[in-house]
Amino acid sequence: MDTIHTKEACQKSILAIRDTLDVVGGKWKLILLTILMTGPRRFRELSREAGISPRILSKELQELEMNELVNRTVQNTKPITVEYSLTPYSESLNDVLSSMQHWGVEHRRKMIR
Amino acid sequence: MDTIHTKEACQKSILAIRDTLDVVGGKWKLILLTILMTGPRRFRELSREAGISPRILSKELQELEMNELVNRTVQNTKPITVEYSLTPYSESLNDVLSSMQHWGVEHRRKMIR
Repeated sequence: MDTIHTKEACQKSILAIRDTLDVVGGKWKLILLTILMTGPRRFRELSREAGISPRILSKELQELEMNELVNRTVQNTKPITVEYSLTPYSESLNDVLSSMQHWGVEHRRKMIR
Repeated sequence: MDTIHTKEACQKSILAIRDTLDVVGGKWKLILLTILMTGPRRFRELSREAGISPRILSKELQELEMNELVNRTVQNTKPITVEYSLTPYSESLNDVLSSMQHWGVEHRRKMIR
């Protein structure tokens, strides 16, 4: 991050980081996006892989959809299946995800030492 | 983020991102670190600037201290003052903070359009 020299620059940084946290903050959203990077999933698959209850998963996916990060596709099968996949816009989060991934790996190394 | 091709790579990414979220996830920690980038603060100053209640601030600062991201210094003044500042290790989060800041700015632009 550029060094923050002024209070105004600090306020702007805080606003931007708050905006990001509003969209992908919390315990689950970045995890869900990471799982979907390996390919689309049905609702139940996501629930199982992330270890997240259906009630919370449903809310998280709705919010991700609303922010255009996840697509929900209803497949005309019998019974109907609903599939979730990443949108092209979700790729804009790649830097956020990769920096967090990198930091997590390094932090674990540091803590084990 | 490197494309994730295998389930194993996905699991590793998820673990690393969970580790990062465990340390700096939640509503406040990245905000507090951003404020401290402009310089050390007393407890009350931090509470006011972040808009965070003393009870929660105290808990958040303790956790940041435990993870060696924030220093707590007791100044031998009358009355005693306690100051919080960033540790050198906190700089390792610069990429995380700058990518989130950048994304927040761009996302706001997109949403306004």
